[in-house]
Amino acid sequence: MESTWAQLLVGLLAVAGVFAAVVLGVLLLAWAPLRGRDPARARRWWSPLAPALRVLAETPVAVWARVRRWRLPRAVTAWLSGSLRHPARLVMLGFAAAVLVGTGLLSLPFATETGRSAGLVTALFTATSAVCVTGLVVVDTGTFFSSFGEAVILGLIQIGGFGIMTLASLLGLLVARRLRMRLQLSAQTETKAIGVGEVRRVVLGVMRISVIVEVLVAAVLAWRFADGYGYSTGRAVYLGVFHAVSAFNNAGFGLYADSLMQFVDDPLVCLPITAAVIIGGLGFPVLFELRRELRSPRTWSVHTKITVGMTVVLLAGGWLAISVVEWSNPGTLGGLGPGGKLLAGFTTAVMTRTAGFNSLNVAEFNDVTLLVHDVLMFIGGGSAGTAGGIKVTTFALLGFVILAEIRGEPSVHALGRRLPAGVQRQALTIVLLSVAAVAAATVALLALTPFRLDQVLFEVTSAFATVGLSTGITAQVGTAGHVILILLMFIGRLGPITAAVALALRERTRRYELPEERPIVG
Amino acid sequence: MESTWAQLLVGLLAVAGVFAAVVLGVLLLAWAPLRGRDPARARRWWSPLAPALRVLAETPVAVWARVRRWRLPRAVTAWLSGSLRHPARLVMLGFAAAVLVGTGLLSLPFATETGRSAGLVTALFTATSAVCVTGLVVVDTGTFFSSFGEAVILGLIQIGGFGIMTLASLLGLLVARRLRMRLQLSAQTETKAIGVGEVRRVVLGVMRISVIVEVLVAAVLAWRFADGYGYSTGRAVYLGVFHAVSAFNNAGFGLYADSLMQFVDDPLVCLPITAAVIIGGLGFPVLFELRRELRSPRTWSVHTKITVGMTVVLLAGGWLAISVVEWSNPGTLGGLGPGGKLLAGFTTAVMTRTAGFNSLNVAEFNDVTLLVHDVLMFIGGGSAGTAGGIKVTTFALLGFVILAEIRGEPSVHALGRRLPAGVQRQALTIVLLSVAAVAAATVALLALTPFRLDQVLFEVTSAFATVGLSTGITAQVGTAGHVILILLMFIGRLGPITAAVALALRERTRRYELPEERPIVG
Ligand SMILES: [K+]
Ligand SMILES: [K+]
Repeated sequence: MESTWAQLLVGLLAVAGVFAAVVLGVLLLAWAPLRGRDPARARRWWSPLAPALRVLAETPVAVWARVRRWRLPRAVTAWLSGSLRHPARLVMLGFAAAVLVGTGLLSLPFATETGRSAGLVTALFTATSAVCVTGLVVVDTGTFFSSFGEAVILGLIQIGGFGIMTLASLLGLLVARRLRMRLQLSAQTETKAIGVGEVRRVVLGVMRISVIVEVLVAAVLAWRFADGYGYSTGRAVYLGVFHAVSAFNNAGFGLYADSLMQFVDDPLVCLPITAAVIIGGLGFPVLFELRRELRSPRTWSVHTKITVGMTVVLLAGGWLAISVVEWSNPGTLGGLGPGGKLLAGFTTAVMTRTAGFNSLNVAEFNDVTLLVHDVLMFIGGGSAGTAGGIKVTTFALLGFVILAEIRGEPSVHALGRRLPAGVQRQALTIVLLSVAAVAAATVALLALTPFRLDQVLFEVTSAFATVGLSTGITAQVGTAGHVILILLMFIGRLGPITAAVALALRERTRRYELPEERPIVG
Repeated sequence: MESTWAQLLVGLLAVAGVFAAVVLGVLLLAWAPLRGRDPARARRWWSPLAPALRVLAETPVAVWARVRRWRLPRAVTAWLSGSLRHPARLVMLGFAAAVLVGTGLLSLPFATETGRSAGLVTALFTATSAVCVTGLVVVDTGTFFSSFGEAVILGLIQIGGFGIMTLASLLGLLVARRLRMRLQLSAQTETKAIGVGEVRRVVLGVMRISVIVEVLVAAVLAWRFADGYGYSTGRAVYLGVFHAVSAFNNAGFGLYADSLMQFVDDPLVCLPITAAVIIGGLGFPVLFELRRELRSPRTWSVHTKITVGMTVVLLAGGWLAISVVEWSNPGTLGGLGPGGKLLAGFTTAVMTRTAGFNSLNVAEFNDVTLLVHDVLMFIGGGSAGTAGGIKVTTFALLGFVILAEIRGEPSVHALGRRLPAGVQRQALTIVLLSVAAVAAATVALLALTPFRLDQVLFEVTSAFATVGLSTGITAQVGTAGHVILILLMFIGRLGPITAAVALALRERTRRYELPEERPIVG
């Protein structure tokens, strides 16, 4: 092993470089057929993102001229250019590319400490877990991977977290713009595209908040690791940066085999990490609004009000429930003092949504705590942030629908605003499809492994909501089980977002109406 | 012990008599204040049922004149008369009365074989389980209760099954009528009330179908018990009647400690019982329609099409899944021949929805089978029948909503008909509140008992969906656990129906509209 720092640098550059090359390649392949043939196609969904795409794609025209001579099968270019018309497919393609790049890099012999390749499944699992900011691991990150491998993982986490925050925010803007246009008939005055200015604002805004939070938290952690635990400055900075990036991106990867268990009663380690987790989990739209209007909650949008309110409620509820149930469990809170119990309970409550570090031993939790975890993990965090799950707004929306139904009100109101009928059905669809995915995977894993329902349900929910907590069975579910978890992480990371966007953009009017009939329910 | 037949007769008469007296008493107490004071009140919700109520209530005016002199507290009569304005509350009141009557009768010393009172919790649990046609038991029905006790249980099952089928059908008619009136402005031409003719048609129709199915199945079973198992004619008839009534009403109570396990490969016992279960579980509205239009499925209503279709799909799916998973499990299907396996798989698939007999040992089922059971039990059977659960139409409706959403269609269509927006939200509300009830009870039982998640979830789902299957933990969950199960059975039996009716009748128009705002979901 040469210099650790050199390895880290090479690793990060490798991820960034290869990923950029792959994205560029995809864009190049897809751009020309779209661009050359039909000017009308310029009006496709991606036209709002065109300014950003164009910058990336126009430059290496020469490269394209070469690629063109390869005469790729028409089906491939057709599929790729078709993908460009569906935001859902394109975002999935980007994440798949990142996972493949990561798998390739993590398969390299010098990505591991032993110098032997990690093997395809381990590399694919780790890369998916990193890009989808999940944090489930089949090998111990700190001891199995070399510094190069760790840097690759860190790079994948940053790409995954940044990508999801940026893309989800942009797609959110796109949906809002489209629906506004469809609603008002003043379509002429407003352009269909999200301007370069808006794209830049989102990208820079996400970058700024990421850098600020990660640097601050890394600094505090580095100081604490150096000062309180006697690490060398270099090592302390590295540990600080790794955990700060992992925390802000809600990734849950750590360099300690026991996650944060050795720091269970150290507020100077736990609190900065929880802060990064909560901020990252609120989502960019909320952070953007809070930055400007933190002091005037009345002016917040319904989205921000719901996200902040639900975050407070779920954190407080989780903290209380976990503390009460585990208070005297000798395997978890039992051995700690009152302060330590409160800190560990709070950290645990934060990590369920959906950061995935743990300062207590998950395998020792009471059944009830595991079930509380399942619920909190499934709900997850804020939209267009680094947290997973179905998202707090989706969950709250259904609550408002039920409330309206019980009150017998024809339209659904929340916090002084009417919620459109379309978004209600979208929330319902997302929740039920998510339940179906979790249920199907639970049945499959139950059938494939010798583990109990509570363990399997926990593992599946953790993978789907990209949480990364585990009762310890991740490494032992077999290859088929690993493939299921990989798919779950991917679907869980992208499914709810892309479903929401695809469904919202698909809203249309029906040309004919059938006669009405009412089945009996209940 | 005197003659068994005398005991049986006394038991049945006791249930019928005491229950009638209680119902009459409630009606009497509530009738006078409603009748005497304010003629405008005659327009309350119950006016459609008034013809039936009047017959019951007008007759014993003399009795009322006496009761009046007792000068009951005003609050009691006010609450009772208030209840009459809410169908949900009234139906609950009726079932609660039946449960109380049953508890009283089952607490009598001569209701048990030993001649000692069963005790309050056991009596209450058994009475609730019988009235709610659930079939969960804390003691073995056949050996613990005397013939009198068994007759009481049989009477409660018949009252519960008949009551739910009749009341749910009448309330369904009422809802349909109200909504039709509100929709069309031709309110003058149609009366708000369900006529005496309609009430009579439903009551007689339910009676007719109950008697026909129960007598036929009882005859086949009695013949088989006498001919194939050497019982005396009297005993065989008694066994036949008990199991036929229990099966048609989807109650799942049996007189054998092992339910139907000793008859696992006897089609002449299993098939008549499954037939009764399926017919009872379709629900009266479907049976009524099938009787008239069995041969022309195209003319069926959407409700009937969905119910029949889902019944076939869930039976076939359950049969296949259970057979595949359990095929070589030595504790269940493993020891049987191919024919026996198919029969036992079919019987098991039928019983999950939501009859509750078992011809295989539930405790020996694979984890996957238990989870498949949980899903099938939760979905349940047809509306306004003796089956429990959220009902197949409720479940299918959400599927149609998701399908419409994925297709981007603004209105939800099913089988050539448009489904009203109101009923969609009602279905959603019923499902999510049911999930919440099951989740809350699961957490509570997990905390209270030493049992595992798979066992507890199975028990809770079984109670909520009034199924009556158990992995064998029913008797061991402690008094607090029994109280939870009692509440679950009651809520599970009445919750979905009354919620559907209450929500549908509550639909109203909003007088003002708030500005619209769309939170980001997913
Ligand atoms: K995570
Ligand atoms: K039952």
